[in-house]
Amino acid sequence: MIIAVAQMGPVARSETRSSVVERLRAMMATAHGRGAELVVFPELALTTFFPRWLIEDRDELLSYYERNMPNNDVQPLFDDARRLGVAFSIGYAELVACDGQEVLYNTYITVDRRGIIVGKYRKIHVPGHSEFEFEREFQHLEKRYFAVGDLGFPVFELHGIRTGMLICNDRRWPEAWRSLGVQNANLVCVGYNTTMHNPEIAQHDHLVPFHHLLSMQAGAYQNGVWAAAAGKAGIEEGAKLLNLSCIVAPTGEVVAVTSTFGDEVITADCDMARCAEIRGNIFDFAKHRRPEKYGLITQS
Amino acid sequence: MIIAVAQMGPVARSETRSSVVERLRAMMATAHGRGAELVVFPELALTTFFPRWLIEDRDELLSYYERNMPNNDVQPLFDDARRLGVAFSIGYAELVACDGQEVLYNTYITVDRRGIIVGKYRKIHVPGHSEFEFEREFQHLEKRYFAVGDLGFPVFELHGIRTGMLICNDRRWPEAWRSLGVQNANLVCVGYNTTMHNPEIAQHDHLVPFHHLLSMQAGAYQNGVWAAAAGKAGIEEGAKLLNLSCIVAPTGEVVAVTSTFGDEVITADCDMARCAEIRGNIFDFAKHRRPEKYGLITQS
Repeated sequence: MIIAVAQMGPVARSETRSSVVERLRAMMATAHGRGAELVVFPELALTTFFPRWLIEDRDELLSYYERNMPNNDVQPLFDDARRLGVAFSIGYAELVACDGQEVLYNTYITVDRRGIIVGKYRKIHVPGHSEFEFEREFQHLEKRYFAVGDLGFPVFELHGIRTGMLICNDRRWPEAWRSLGVQNANLVCVGYNTTMHNPEIAQHDHLVPFHHLLSMQAGAYQNGVWAAAAGKAGIEEGAKLLNLSCIVAPTGEVVAVTSTFGDEVITADCDMARCAEIRGNIFDFAKHRRPEKYGLITQS
Repeated sequence: MIIAVAQMGPVARSETRSSVVERLRAMMATAHGRGAELVVFPELALTTFFPRWLIEDRDELLSYYERNMPNNDVQPLFDDARRLGVAFSIGYAELVACDGQEVLYNTYITVDRRGIIVGKYRKIHVPGHSEFEFEREFQHLEKRYFAVGDLGFPVFELHGIRTGMLICNDRRWPEAWRSLGVQNANLVCVGYNTTMHNPEIAQHDHLVPFHHLLSMQAGAYQNGVWAAAAGKAGIEEGAKLLNLSCIVAPTGEVVAVTSTFGDEVITADCDMARCAEIRGNIFDFAKHRRPEKYGLITQS
């Protein structure tokens, strides 16, 4: 299966969803031209990364969320998927109206080649903070704007391949990868927006690319999965975002990686049979895992 | 705290424990000369890696195990620890007589500067196989020779530093690192014997060094701990063992690594306050972990 990762350059606060969707459609066409059957798009792909601002006006805040998926703005991408026979994964801010309450999630879906949503995940490791922090040039208000995901770590069939999804900070947490691994996932799609500057620990800014790749490579190797990660890159509204969107083999080897900070498509031919090279040997879970010894992980 | 890792070259099947202990004492003296307060020695340091052979004679097999620790052979190392004021960690095969049964473990201990055993761990992720496999040039009979450890993943105080231990294959399993991380370990001592050739998956032989470092770096970073790993290296009874004994910072950066396949001491000045750079930010467990979502890890 040829998999494409479609990195996005920045999305301005003023850019419309229609404009963004045209960019996504252009990358899907490029991916299709290279034989890809799946295109992985970033987290919160349809808008700028709005948690960097305190937005006190509720209507303005909610304008960043989708109430339905697909909706009119995104429908052309679903149509292309069906027309071209290309699946895709994409992240967006989701508003769920439930018992008169509005619940907000950082959500990621996978749409198959028929244009049907076959997998949905809501981010569990929501990072950042919930109150305005005066000393920050940019806020990171994900904890204010998103509830913790309520769908667990789902694994589903995409064109016969057991697939899971993670969103940004999730990829740093081995528990998230393992939750997919124990469900026999063979492919993990990841979307992210990662800032190159963290004011809480600025002396680690130079390590941002390393920590991203380390987390991706360890997650892929330790679970014997293919991992495809798409980020938004470049200077978005003054904040510099990490590039290095990548495809990682079940051996942990990076087999494709972006080299720009703009819209860029990379592809790799991903043989799902290779997962067994890892999962049938060093990480043969049935033989070697000891879940009865892991109680501290769920108790602590 | 200056920490030393003492990599060992090969130990021949014919080499006596006294001879091995003299090698360890020489490395401890070297480490002490460089200001080290702790020396980390390999897994099964006192003998050759005997699980590479099927040993059917019970007395011969048990000759590789220690019934008491310290014992006469190892006592000089304990004496040096007290005399020099240097702690050490070391692995050995342990025989426990219990209710008329002999139980065998792959064990690792930490001895403080007073020469007192302050931590003991028995390997949980016992790799390999339990029956003779004809097609192998070397067996890997750890599952035959060692029971699964029964002490959990203990964390203890070593000179005021919260310390845990892992043995060889354990270092590849994020559950093992996390079990120490959630107990607020700041230092993880690791001993290993890793073959450069795995006949089950020989096409990955070139990845053995990468997978070792990837596991060490991910484990250190994702738990914000210092990690010090000592291996036996070089050609031991015809089997080539990985070198790359190393010290890894809580950022995941390798700060010291061996460059030979023989007895070799490396040191690094390890500031335990640096753990908070990771554990107080991206991996602030209290803020960001979601143990209530991790049920699959202990159920699967």
